[in-house]
Amino acid sequence: MNISSKLLENAIEQMASLPGIGKKTAMRLVLHLLKREPEEVARFSESFLMLKEKSQKCRVCHNITDQDICGICASPGRNRALLCVVEDIRDIIAIEATGQFSGLYHVLGGVISPMEGIGPTDLEIESLLSRAATGEIEEIILALSSTLEGDTTGFFIHKKLAATGIQMSIIARGIAVGDELQYADEITLGRSIKNRTPYERSLPLHK
Amino acid sequence: MNISSKLLENAIEQMASLPGIGKKTAMRLVLHLLKREPEEVARFSESFLMLKEKSQKCRVCHNITDQDICGICASPGRNRALLCVVEDIRDIIAIEATGQFSGLYHVLGGVISPMEGIGPTDLEIESLLSRAATGEIEEIILALSSTLEGDTTGFFIHKKLAATGIQMSIIARGIAVGDELQYADEITLGRSIKNRTPYERSLPLHK
Repeated sequence: MNISSKLLENAIEQMASLPGIGKKTAMRLVLHLLKREPEEVARFSESFLMLKEKSQKCRVCHNITDQDICGICASPGRNRALLCVVEDIRDIIAIEATGQFSGLYHVLGGVISPMEGIGPTDLEIESLLSRAATGEIEEIILALSSTLEGDTTGFFIHKKLAATGIQMSIIARGIAVGDELQYADEITLGRSIKNRTPYERSLPLHK
Repeated sequence: MNISSKLLENAIEQMASLPGIGKKTAMRLVLHLLKREPEEVARFSESFLMLKEKSQKCRVCHNITDQDICGICASPGRNRALLCVVEDIRDIIAIEATGQFSGLYHVLGGVISPMEGIGPTDLEIESLLSRAATGEIEEIILALSSTLEGDTTGFFIHKKLAATGIQMSIIARGIAVGDELQYADEITLGRSIKNRTPYERSLPLHK
């Protein structure tokens, strides 16, 4: 691109460094920013600086937080005997949005992936074992992606915790609500038949 | 969204304020930024602050520039008798990329759109008339969008400049290079037949 302004070129380059943002989209976004008031652009830019500077990982569950311990871990209303293991902060937000879970979380920070060179020591598995060792936890729910890497990670954690006697469960895999059966893949459909649920248990969600 | 960090929530909100960026995409982008080094995040944020603070509009053509007059207007190699009128800075970048134009530009900053409340006085039309009045310009090319608003704006400028005797042209509308005839709309195809080009003139582009 032949751009007459070095500042514009630099801003476009920075915007295009974000994943999934191409040069043309970056240009559109930057020119949009340029049309805003100076204070608005300052607020925009500073929000990322502040986030990077001031936010940290929760000492307990590794969720992102502005304090030492995150709001979920600090809340007296949560069930401390129930722990949900997730890959990423985004999974917490997604699960919280369902309103179906009142326990605590543990963010692994990824899944075991030999292809990408991510091993168990790169994840927050050691700290999960420490939390399990306190004896406070009665059940651990594995809420990992239904991929080879997610399943491997779940299996690894399951083996490590087998001796603790903590009840371990995995979120249900099956037909998504609203999906048509004929378009489901065989493995999902097969699993959903194998792990069928008593009819009465399926009702509360539809209330 | 129920996010445990106010800083994260704020950063996501700012990112989602960009056009075409939804909440989920914003979250993905912000969490990506959060994984970067502090200096990288600083470079990212400062690029927009600097752009807003230091860049300005070229005094002559209203292109964006770091100086008083943009690189194109200041260049001694450009044909000062030929002026191309465009809506937006992005159009300059697109035309410059073709390498087919060596004249100067004039950025209107939009098109006349009664629906959006944009009239001729909201655009850089007055300054275009002043430039035309200097007598330096021999031809003005209207390179506006082929929409009702673009055509209206072109017509308005054409009427305003009719008395100056400056030759006025409009960029060719027709079948895009690489397009198949059967998929072209009737109006474009009709225009492309009406405004057909002598065969010899179509050759240089294919050299």
